[in-house]
Amino acid sequence: MFIAGCINLDPVMPPIESAGRLSKAPEHFLSPDQIVEVQNGRREFLRGAFATALSGAAVTGVISPAMAQVDFKGDPNILELPEHSKGLGQPVAVQPYGMPSKWEKNLQRRESPGLTRVSASSVSFCPLQGLFGIITPNGLHFERHHQGWWDIDPTKHRFMINGLVKNPKVYTMDDLMRLPSVSRMHFIECGANTGMEWGNVAVPTVQYTHGMLSCCEFTGVPLSVLLDDCGYDKLKGKYILAEGADGSGMTRSLSIERALDDCFVAYAMNGEMLRPENGYPLRLVAPGIQGVSWVKWLRRLEVGDKPYATKDETIHYIDLMPDGTHRQYTSIQECKSVITTPSGGQTLLDRGFYNVSGLAWSGRGKIKRVDVSFDGGRNWRTAKLGSPVLTKCLTRFNIGFNWDGSPVIMQSRAIDETGYVQPKSSQLRAVRGTRSIYHNNAIQSWKLGSNGEVSNVHVE
Amino acid sequence: MFIAGCINLDPVMPPIESAGRLSKAPEHFLSPDQIVEVQNGRREFLRGAFATALSGAAVTGVISPAMAQVDFKGDPNILELPEHSKGLGQPVAVQPYGMPSKWEKNLQRRESPGLTRVSASSVSFCPLQGLFGIITPNGLHFERHHQGWWDIDPTKHRFMINGLVKNPKVYTMDDLMRLPSVSRMHFIECGANTGMEWGNVAVPTVQYTHGMLSCCEFTGVPLSVLLDDCGYDKLKGKYILAEGADGSGMTRSLSIERALDDCFVAYAMNGEMLRPENGYPLRLVAPGIQGVSWVKWLRRLEVGDKPYATKDETIHYIDLMPDGTHRQYTSIQECKSVITTPSGGQTLLDRGFYNVSGLAWSGRGKIKRVDVSFDGGRNWRTAKLGSPVLTKCLTRFNIGFNWDGSPVIMQSRAIDETGYVQPKSSQLRAVRGTRSIYHNNAIQSWKLGSNGEVSNVHVE
Repeated sequence: MFIAGCINLDPVMPPIESAGRLSKAPEHFLSPDQIVEVQNGRREFLRGAFATALSGAAVTGVISPAMAQVDFKGDPNILELPEHSKGLGQPVAVQPYGMPSKWEKNLQRRESPGLTRVSASSVSFCPLQGLFGIITPNGLHFERHHQGWWDIDPTKHRFMINGLVKNPKVYTMDDLMRLPSVSRMHFIECGANTGMEWGNVAVPTVQYTHGMLSCCEFTGVPLSVLLDDCGYDKLKGKYILAEGADGSGMTRSLSIERALDDCFVAYAMNGEMLRPENGYPLRLVAPGIQGVSWVKWLRRLEVGDKPYATKDETIHYIDLMPDGTHRQYTSIQECKSVITTPSGGQTLLDRGFYNVSGLAWSGRGKIKRVDVSFDGGRNWRTAKLGSPVLTKCLTRFNIGFNWDGSPVIMQSRAIDETGYVQPKSSQLRAVRGTRSIYHNNAIQSWKLGSNGEVSNVHVE
Repeated sequence: MFIAGCINLDPVMPPIESAGRLSKAPEHFLSPDQIVEVQNGRREFLRGAFATALSGAAVTGVISPAMAQVDFKGDPNILELPEHSKGLGQPVAVQPYGMPSKWEKNLQRRESPGLTRVSASSVSFCPLQGLFGIITPNGLHFERHHQGWWDIDPTKHRFMINGLVKNPKVYTMDDLMRLPSVSRMHFIECGANTGMEWGNVAVPTVQYTHGMLSCCEFTGVPLSVLLDDCGYDKLKGKYILAEGADGSGMTRSLSIERALDDCFVAYAMNGEMLRPENGYPLRLVAPGIQGVSWVKWLRRLEVGDKPYATKDETIHYIDLMPDGTHRQYTSIQECKSVITTPSGGQTLLDRGFYNVSGLAWSGRGKIKRVDVSFDGGRNWRTAKLGSPVLTKCLTRFNIGFNWDGSPVIMQSRAIDETGYVQPKSSQLRAVRGTRSIYHNNAIQSWKLGSNGEVSNVHVE
């Protein structure tokens, strides 16, 4: 019998929280009073609800839809059918564009104040602890801007291809939407995701450790179509430069092999046009490559004969190695995974069975296997992968776990189709040192205490 | 060279429109002035934009990111960089739950007033003409209620399994979310979708002909897990009854084979909890089966030994056959497809190349092939299917089309993995007669006139 689920104890990201952004998280469905009851060891009211139902439902074999003989009240205090089972509800299209339930208001992307000087160049994190499957709803997609976001008039937006091409062209949005298109599901991860863990900061929740990660179905025009349309120089053209229309002048180089392989210029995400904060009306989709290269508000591609060495690839998004050199153009997001349920800041209210769930991904292809350990990496069990398993896309994994009340260290370890195994933190540091910010794909450890609380811990 | 795209000429659904619901559709990115220009045959300004860009960009081979030598203005009237390329934009998390661009406000689900006496028991249609890929964003998912929608408090919601089971049980939402879960992408289609076409009404847009169709990634607990948990009677248990908590008392029978095969009790859609109008906090997912069986606000499953013959399956959702008998329990949505771009109410502004795109689906499995005709069914070409092709899920198809300006009848014809071929309207009528409302999966015809306007026509 399953008694209770996970609660979230309002973990906050140090150092401070902006006004009113964080309140009780929505990842449980017990009332605050019930949570206190459970934490004080009084679980009888829950069992009571079961017992009442069981005695009422004991008339097994009655197959009439009539419910009179069964105590099916929504709450022990309600002595009659709830209003929604009697009255007339809301009409259709009262929300021409619908919104989540009022009970889910606390599931939101959250800024981490203090990361940057102004919020226009900051990050809002995706609430992975409250999400399911692999699709990120557009309203909760993480944000990372360099000079704030804009809602650009699509009738005025122009996209140019120039450089080593026979026919430089400027496209309107209408032009682009007449061209052959593809729709593909891919993850996007900021190169700085999990960056705080390099410094053992152990931020409290998976929203803050791994929340610069989202996954959508994107639709747009393959770069192979566009570059052919402009007649790119197949001999001299080795790189492309992608340039955004925002004030940051975001520019990133990409090898032409990758550009022609599976990159595309996207105007849609999850079935609808891009959201403004995600690059409306046009962004680059560079599957498997760190998010900064998915240039938003894309206005230009230039074909060149060498990497461009712009500020965004020589000063930022580089790794300082132990010998003092810089590791540049490290664009592929290596194989990685994390348990999202339960995760830091959540609390198991009781012993017994739990479905433990998480996400795995690799910038090099498909996920082949995910192993999960409940003893800090000594023993591993293989988790069940959700379907479909797609290339350069999130893969959901699930594994059953019977908690006996003892302390547990939970870890997940992903393996991709190239055979690459997600490293332990100590393995990563042995190669990369301790002075990096970007490109941390180490195994994440969550400690489940005997009081049921889950917290972020570092395990070598 | 690609000059212009599709425009939408504000088609309305007869008989009337509710106040303010319909205005200019968002499926184009030309300004109203530009559309008038194009319709009056003056397309030079568009070519002008290209020419300007071409002359400016003619400095091919210059690979500096500097843009000074190229005329890259967003609009011919703007003589300097747009504001968004100079200023500081909006901060992150200014929308903790994000919304579409202000330029996309007209892409919305729309009611068809007059279908039912009150809007609480009506339909709002999904704007397929403006969507991409296969995922329907939750805010645009179609609605069909029988007594309105509610936003039920999930802490009070209870879900019971009773009938021919050893251990009848009542589950809280927390209980359910601890159980093993699956995430799967499936289409959901109302049995009445395309119902108006039985009567040759020829409603003007694909939103109204096929818009009771959506597709999401759903997450929840397999019925096989739940029925095992309650110890269902494997000998006598032949059917289940699913019952909703809304005032309509929606109840539908399902064979236990189908229930155990791939049905599940879902709490999430597209990564987040269900939307209230789609059954929050719990609905049945019955892949391939008509939408009415995906009971929303699900409060009970009962195991029985025969179909329940409730009002919702004996009076509604049945087909009146030519011999006067009723075809009941016709729950599987047969193989079907429709071209969504361009579709009724849209206008092609110019001759030349267009990417023609649409959706195909089958309640019996995967889509094997989609053929497209541009001459009313005499000749067919095979379209390119998007990936992944999933079972009982939408599949996007695309095919290139060079329009020479002559009138064209466009059709799509889907074939599923069982070999079933989507029928012509005349083939369907030969078997089913003309008095049906439900379960119309005939081939849809769109006429492209020489003036570029696309309209709904009936072709036998």
